[in-house]
Amino acid sequence: MPGEFDFLDWIRSQQTTSDLVPLPAGDDMAIVKWAGEDLLLVGTDQVLDGVHFDSSVHPPDLIGQKVMNRNLSDCAAMACLPACAVATVALPKGAEIEYAKKLYLGMKRAADQFDCAIIGGDTATWPGKLAVTVTILGRSAGIPPVTRSGARPNQHIFVTGPLGGSILGRHMTFTPRVREARALAATGAISAMIDLSDGLSRDIRHICRQSNVGALLLEQNIPVHDHSIEMRRDGHSPIEHALHDGEDHELLYVSSQPIPKEFPGILIGWTTAEKGVRLRTKAGDIPLDPKGWEHQF
Amino acid sequence: MPGEFDFLDWIRSQQTTSDLVPLPAGDDMAIVKWAGEDLLLVGTDQVLDGVHFDSSVHPPDLIGQKVMNRNLSDCAAMACLPACAVATVALPKGAEIEYAKKLYLGMKRAADQFDCAIIGGDTATWPGKLAVTVTILGRSAGIPPVTRSGARPNQHIFVTGPLGGSILGRHMTFTPRVREARALAATGAISAMIDLSDGLSRDIRHICRQSNVGALLLEQNIPVHDHSIEMRRDGHSPIEHALHDGEDHELLYVSSQPIPKEFPGILIGWTTAEKGVRLRTKAGDIPLDPKGWEHQF
Repeated sequence: MPGEFDFLDWIRSQQTTSDLVPLPAGDDMAIVKWAGEDLLLVGTDQVLDGVHFDSSVHPPDLIGQKVMNRNLSDCAAMACLPACAVATVALPKGAEIEYAKKLYLGMKRAADQFDCAIIGGDTATWPGKLAVTVTILGRSAGIPPVTRSGARPNQHIFVTGPLGGSILGRHMTFTPRVREARALAATGAISAMIDLSDGLSRDIRHICRQSNVGALLLEQNIPVHDHSIEMRRDGHSPIEHALHDGEDHELLYVSSQPIPKEFPGILIGWTTAEKGVRLRTKAGDIPLDPKGWEHQF
Repeated sequence: MPGEFDFLDWIRSQQTTSDLVPLPAGDDMAIVKWAGEDLLLVGTDQVLDGVHFDSSVHPPDLIGQKVMNRNLSDCAAMACLPACAVATVALPKGAEIEYAKKLYLGMKRAADQFDCAIIGGDTATWPGKLAVTVTILGRSAGIPPVTRSGARPNQHIFVTGPLGGSILGRHMTFTPRVREARALAATGAISAMIDLSDGLSRDIRHICRQSNVGALLLEQNIPVHDHSIEMRRDGHSPIEHALHDGEDHELLYVSSQPIPKEFPGILIGWTTAEKGVRLRTKAGDIPLDPKGWEHQF
């Protein structure tokens, strides 16, 4: 029966050295030659069976792709370039080595889109469900990182695409907006940015709180994804789905200037000196309470 | 009911900025100012309920301590200095926020021993068992990393302490040999090193294979831990426990020179040009097959 070390041999056969990574996976740690002029950004994110995917429905390559793309989307949120990543996989006992390989290849397919090398990891089997963690290192590469805390009152709030209903499938297949984020940040006009993982109504609050501002969103400007319309069948309106659904992984950003039309950006409102998040509807301005995703203890 | 964001607020309250980490946990990624003269080492390791610990027996702070110490021990194996770490925690649904805090404080207690900051992470609850991943960044800080692949024939093989029976408790409470590793590597005499996680009989093979050498171990020199003697009750001899048990997290290293007596090192054998691992017993030389820990698919 093939064991962990056969899998590690296979992983090693997938590794290449580079100027950045003189020693990839295969030792106790990988060695990276970091350029001192680059800020180093570090993020980590996990996907769990029954929460972020359903292993009885989703194939392993899509699960691997999703966890890597979530991390790449964090790089987008900070406007950094993905550099390299490591992964841990907790496999249910009885999973086949081919399953682990497909998971890895899904991660690699996503990472390869941004020349991000997978340089290490740990795989174990356990009497539990599938859990996968990726940690990603990004580099500033000439563009200062964009945080959540730089927004000022009376700036423009944008999103990069239509929202809601990602549960119908996009949550497994979204494209991280790394290139868009880099182009936007290179303008020097972006004061705060986040990727929409918890839902617009919740993620806008992260920016507001960390920037010490409020926000006014315009209901009629919120771009509603077709999947939000399809999701009407659950009794919530399309705009509710667009406002509260999670895992869109579009960018939500604040800009001190109007964005030139060649950049992706749908204006959805403004930051305000007054705290709190409000929604301008036909019936008037109302508080916009968060209904997005929050893990409960 | 407290949620993920209450926990994140608490985590943020635990964070401090430093020259190394101008932006710790709280944004999409942490920002690190890496000194270009330092090689960057990256490792990741997970602990899983029912495999690496038993959540019905072990308290959360010890579980957190263990996963951090496993990663710190990887730093020891490469002779690098721990710099910073991130963590993901998959908590069983119904776990209390206090449990998550204790887990974090256990990690922090271990990391603080080596001035290693925890700068980011992700916590989620799921319909599964407790799984914790830590990713650690280490820096070379003036000492070239020691890999598994530098051993040459006819060099000395050492371990830093007595082996076996860690399952009686030491696997949860071991001390990562970071300081010892740095002191040893600073001599310039260490050609290969690994931390003993899978068991001596298996870990020596990692060094042999990656260094393209063989090894002759001397049975009478293998330091047997008292816990190996205690473990006799399971029908295996103390020396069998010392040779094959995992999770000692002592260092196994190869040196081109005898080690000065102020350094931790028990001579257990020599590397050989002839491939394979042999054990010199009173009855003669016999092949030493690996019986240590390997996850099976």
